[in-house]
Amino acid sequence: MQTIKLKKKAYLLEGYSIVGPLEGKGPLKDYFDYILKDDTLKESSFEKSERKLLQDIVIEAINKSGLKISDIDFFFGGDLLNQIVSSSYTARELNLPFIGLYSACATMAEALALSALFIDCGLCNNVVAATCTHFSSAERQYRFPLEFANQRPPTAQWTITGGGASIISNIKSKIRINAVTFGKVIDYGISDINNMGAAMAPAACDTIKAHLSNMKKKVSDYDLILTGDLGKLGSEILIDLMEHEKIIMGKNYADCGCMIFDKTMRVFMGGSGAGCSASVLNSYVLYKMKKGDFKRVLLVSTGALMSTTTSQQGETIPGIAHAVELVYEPENTKNSVAKSKQKKDV
Amino acid sequence: MQTIKLKKKAYLLEGYSIVGPLEGKGPLKDYFDYILKDDTLKESSFEKSERKLLQDIVIEAINKSGLKISDIDFFFGGDLLNQIVSSSYTARELNLPFIGLYSACATMAEALALSALFIDCGLCNNVVAATCTHFSSAERQYRFPLEFANQRPPTAQWTITGGGASIISNIKSKIRINAVTFGKVIDYGISDINNMGAAMAPAACDTIKAHLSNMKKKVSDYDLILTGDLGKLGSEILIDLMEHEKIIMGKNYADCGCMIFDKTMRVFMGGSGAGCSASVLNSYVLYKMKKGDFKRVLLVSTGALMSTTTSQQGETIPGIAHAVELVYEPENTKNSVAKSKQKKDV
Repeated sequence: MQTIKLKKKAYLLEGYSIVGPLEGKGPLKDYFDYILKDDTLKESSFEKSERKLLQDIVIEAINKSGLKISDIDFFFGGDLLNQIVSSSYTARELNLPFIGLYSACATMAEALALSALFIDCGLCNNVVAATCTHFSSAERQYRFPLEFANQRPPTAQWTITGGGASIISNIKSKIRINAVTFGKVIDYGISDINNMGAAMAPAACDTIKAHLSNMKKKVSDYDLILTGDLGKLGSEILIDLMEHEKIIMGKNYADCGCMIFDKTMRVFMGGSGAGCSASVLNSYVLYKMKKGDFKRVLLVSTGALMSTTTSQQGETIPGIAHAVELVYEPENTKNSVAKSKQKKDV
Repeated sequence: MQTIKLKKKAYLLEGYSIVGPLEGKGPLKDYFDYILKDDTLKESSFEKSERKLLQDIVIEAINKSGLKISDIDFFFGGDLLNQIVSSSYTARELNLPFIGLYSACATMAEALALSALFIDCGLCNNVVAATCTHFSSAERQYRFPLEFANQRPPTAQWTITGGGASIISNIKSKIRINAVTFGKVIDYGISDINNMGAAMAPAACDTIKAHLSNMKKKVSDYDLILTGDLGKLGSEILIDLMEHEKIIMGKNYADCGCMIFDKTMRVFMGGSGAGCSASVLNSYVLYKMKKGDFKRVLLVSTGALMSTTTSQQGETIPGIAHAVELVYEPENTKNSVAKSKQKKDV
């Protein structure tokens, strides 16, 4: 069975998020731990900026949790750059045993799910799960360098600059990881690389359906079902697909890609990128769960698994979605509602 | 602790390997399940050939184990192509929940280690761990297209065409997975992309040292310590580095990259690629362990974590090595020494 119900031993001890200047003007601006003023992070290339961003996120998450780097047993991470170099080079700097992952923009949920299983099975005490993306390095690798000034079609999404890290631990906190579902790779034949939402929606549908059915739960049992980054069009498609499965998504459904930007911003269908669900989870969702406003949340990060080579060779775009169910445990006192102190811009 | 000792519940039920025509003329030719006559697999691009190769390997491994695809709970896989597309598209065809991994040429050990932990912790019953590489798609992505006919320096290695899949199960077989060590990312400052062996050797040293120390074992406790694909130069460097740590590797140390090709072949320092340790484990090592010739084996797959972009930006090459310890359990009767029937060339 693709869903694994945990034995109630894995907790989301703390999370930390950093986003870029544009994301920092969006609707979630008050929830992020830190907003960059300069998205180059004073590095000489955007790839190096992305790497620095991930390093900062991981280190700050560990600091915020009150643990030390030496308390962390494993680093589960991945990113969108070829050969997940942002994560690998971050692991080099941190000197932590590294479990490298790739699920495109579903990487945060994959990392969280594996992290939670490691803790729940008693394999170790504390791990960090993290990912991030940078708009400018993603544009260069997947589309065009910024200097090319290409135009986007209306179905395009906007890779966010930002990311998040979660400390998963056996130390009890108010947020417990209750169950995880690893997704199948689903392909409905979309080949337009400017319509990722449509390519990923069927995978989200498949995973949510499997998770609800395996957990014997209804949509209304969740205060929030949150897809990764389907964007506006993709989430409308998901709502339709779910309706075909006789599941009404309702008002508790939201999408990170739609939440992170505001309608006045010229980001077309909304945010995307592995950092999208990573930053929204570790800011807004974390805050609301610590306060008890959300008592049961299903995070469903979604990824499009093509490469530029497969697209050039005429292949369609397969999608994947992994799900992580978080529950509120008010009896635990660890982790406060207070935001971490804003550190100085690098 | 980076080493996890298992609870004796995870078995390597069966393995399957396919290699290309050149590898099929090498010293291990009698051990591979299948040797390709045509390394295009009748596909229109080498990327598609690689994908077809991985699909064939996974399906044949499941068949050989006597299980059905529907008995497999998860597919742990990754490969060297950007966005691990060979594995993602294979997962699409198989319709299995997919856990995408990337550790460059250390991916087989990463996949095996996670697979074994899933089974050992009772999370599921049967999983498949697989990876493969194709010489021609790797050349094109990491170096030059074949048509360019570039020359190689003497320290270069040869990405093999081939791969392997292991079925990890709670069904008892003669080969049990006893312990795993996840590696740290180690960088000694090598920046020559034609000298991967030197870049990876320090990571292998770090992981072997950690594994031996955490397991309280000596080199002589193993019938075979097998590094992934350090090649001739890299394994000489490893022997030196270990000597500095007062650990003598001795005659039971071998390297998949050195074993898969023969000295008369023009492959410079020997084989490399994620498929290298995957194919050697699932052919020669599997055969020798089933027979009881090897009673305790430490597989240490090694990976170089750079991308072409990081190399172009002047970065050095970090390495990683993950280790999996396999032990022989003669009391179990499952899995025979007989080779699977050679299927017809595609």
